[in-house]
Amino acid sequence: MTTTRGLEGVVATTSTISSIKDDVLTYRGYSIQDLAERSTFEEVVYLLWNGELPTTEQLCSFKRTLAENARVPDELFTFMKKYPLDYVHPMAVLRSAVSNLGIYDPDAERMDKQSNKDKAVRIQAKIATLVAGFSRIRKGLEPVPPNESLGFAANFLYMLKGCTPTEVAAEMFDKALILHADHELNASTFTARVCVATLSDMYSGITSAIGALKGPLHGGANEQVMHMLEKIGSIEWVDDYILNALENKKKIMGFGHRVYKNGDPRARILKTMAKKISGLQGDGKLYDMSVKIENLIKEKKGLLPNTDFYSATLYHELGIDHDLFTPVFAISRTSGWAAHIMEQYNDNRLIRPRAEYNGARLRKVAPIDQR
Amino acid sequence: MTTTRGLEGVVATTSTISSIKDDVLTYRGYSIQDLAERSTFEEVVYLLWNGELPTTEQLCSFKRTLAENARVPDELFTFMKKYPLDYVHPMAVLRSAVSNLGIYDPDAERMDKQSNKDKAVRIQAKIATLVAGFSRIRKGLEPVPPNESLGFAANFLYMLKGCTPTEVAAEMFDKALILHADHELNASTFTARVCVATLSDMYSGITSAIGALKGPLHGGANEQVMHMLEKIGSIEWVDDYILNALENKKKIMGFGHRVYKNGDPRARILKTMAKKISGLQGDGKLYDMSVKIENLIKEKKGLLPNTDFYSATLYHELGIDHDLFTPVFAISRTSGWAAHIMEQYNDNRLIRPRAEYNGARLRKVAPIDQR
Repeated sequence: MTTTRGLEGVVATTSTISSIKDDVLTYRGYSIQDLAERSTFEEVVYLLWNGELPTTEQLCSFKRTLAENARVPDELFTFMKKYPLDYVHPMAVLRSAVSNLGIYDPDAERMDKQSNKDKAVRIQAKIATLVAGFSRIRKGLEPVPPNESLGFAANFLYMLKGCTPTEVAAEMFDKALILHADHELNASTFTARVCVATLSDMYSGITSAIGALKGPLHGGANEQVMHMLEKIGSIEWVDDYILNALENKKKIMGFGHRVYKNGDPRARILKTMAKKISGLQGDGKLYDMSVKIENLIKEKKGLLPNTDFYSATLYHELGIDHDLFTPVFAISRTSGWAAHIMEQYNDNRLIRPRAEYNGARLRKVAPIDQR
Repeated sequence: MTTTRGLEGVVATTSTISSIKDDVLTYRGYSIQDLAERSTFEEVVYLLWNGELPTTEQLCSFKRTLAENARVPDELFTFMKKYPLDYVHPMAVLRSAVSNLGIYDPDAERMDKQSNKDKAVRIQAKIATLVAGFSRIRKGLEPVPPNESLGFAANFLYMLKGCTPTEVAAEMFDKALILHADHELNASTFTARVCVATLSDMYSGITSAIGALKGPLHGGANEQVMHMLEKIGSIEWVDDYILNALENKKKIMGFGHRVYKNGDPRARILKTMAKKISGLQGDGKLYDMSVKIENLIKEKKGLLPNTDFYSATLYHELGIDHDLFTPVFAISRTSGWAAHIMEQYNDNRLIRPRAEYNGARLRKVAPIDQR
């Protein structure tokens, strides 16, 4: 037996959901560029869960169902208000909140296909409400109830800010949600699949995925990018900061990817979007700094930006608090997690690899006074 | 690339914690038989976390620390009292409760070694209080605060029942905790390691492990064994039930194991304990039925009982509610989960295998009215 650290290159399952091949990311066979240009997040969620893009009628009905399921039990906000809001990590709150959603779903334990699809809808619809509600509660504001007449992306920004977003902001956010919806067996999706392969319920799967996404090596990366941009502060300090970091072998967040060797296709689309929104409603400072960092890292290390790098600027310009970047990522990725959980259920096998033991052997327990 | 379903036989990591080799289970090189005979659960937890059994002084200090950390924030029981207690799944409650523990730990995000060890102590100490408290709350009783003068096993039974257990009951429960403390890369432990390999925090890791353990293919099995015993009802119905189940290709819970081919060593010890306690304080009915089932399954299918089979009888005779069997398993396994999480942090690499894509290819998004 040979150990494959991090299971790098090991194929753990087959999947019909998303594919990364030759640096092209597809969902159900459609490239993400195509989907970002010609569809909406709701269409993509429908696609991920059903395998096909919806017709007009199917989409209308799906959007309606999502909108109708967006309210969360009052108790969840009651609990949040009691949390130690001065220090609590937003992803820890989301982890608890989604686990609690399961507690308030009388169908949480039903495992037939329709029940699982219904649960996916509920979690997808409610997770946006939970993130927006938490953001307001910690600012001493009341959560804004969902507006059923708005699309998913626009409704989130509405619940976050309390007023309807501009069309451009809603569209940009919608595309960002599409781009982050799924990504093959990334660490949080794999966590979810390992979890539910015991035939545990969907709430357990999504809760563990949120736990994994919370880690700085995964979903936390775009927030770290933002910290870096803030620390650098201004374009004239980019050279100093980056060269110094490289010299001290510090990891620069937002660059490189284990799977993409010639660049992350999401990064290119996000860069265009970050540029557009920076021109429209910002001073372009973050965007300009980011481009300079990108060029420098490419020159010095040969590394290309990944999805986290320009999403930091985009989310910042959309007015999302920096420590909500990862919860926002979770809103989007819930669609992929749910798709993978349902796929796992459809042809399940317990996921249980082995460890190679290299510790002490054949010891005898000595009486405690002789140790 | 070839797909290894369920990662069967794939070695995902090296580990110095526990080993299953030639059907012998060891923790840090000590066989579980030896540990169950000559040590206590607290010594085993210390061993799992530190690599060595404690001296008298170390054990005294460790027990003190565990006892001092057993109280949980009041809010956690306040939340539980609001849960829909008529239908909620105890493992869903535990998943939320441990996630909430993280919210109330100001050091949750600290990642140095000492902080992680401190968090392990807190979770280990408090999880017993949470399970016992939940059991009382759903019966309309107040949680019993921990008793610092009792050992870990005795204190749990005390908090559960409200009175000090007999010495035999405490000893049996203590041994059952030892036997379930760790088990190499089982599905929940692997879930925890995949989760924290993103450098997520320990509360996220244990929460996802609880989610995985909740699944009927993993921790839920001894509860299913109990359901089966109840359904059979009496020894004279064993033949009818089992033969009928086998004929209809129904899975009999509590038998066989992917890793042990010649029998689960834990099952043998648990069988002896189940026999002893059944003779002492029961009518021996469940035990006798279990033996008959064991013999029949061995004869008809060549399968041997695993750890879940006799733990059902043991826990029942200890007066633990059947749907608390899995939460009790979680109390014990928390020690192993925490050991594996700390081991993962010590030499971390993101765990990210690949999926082999076998879905639709190269599709173009059609305008919605042309779908």
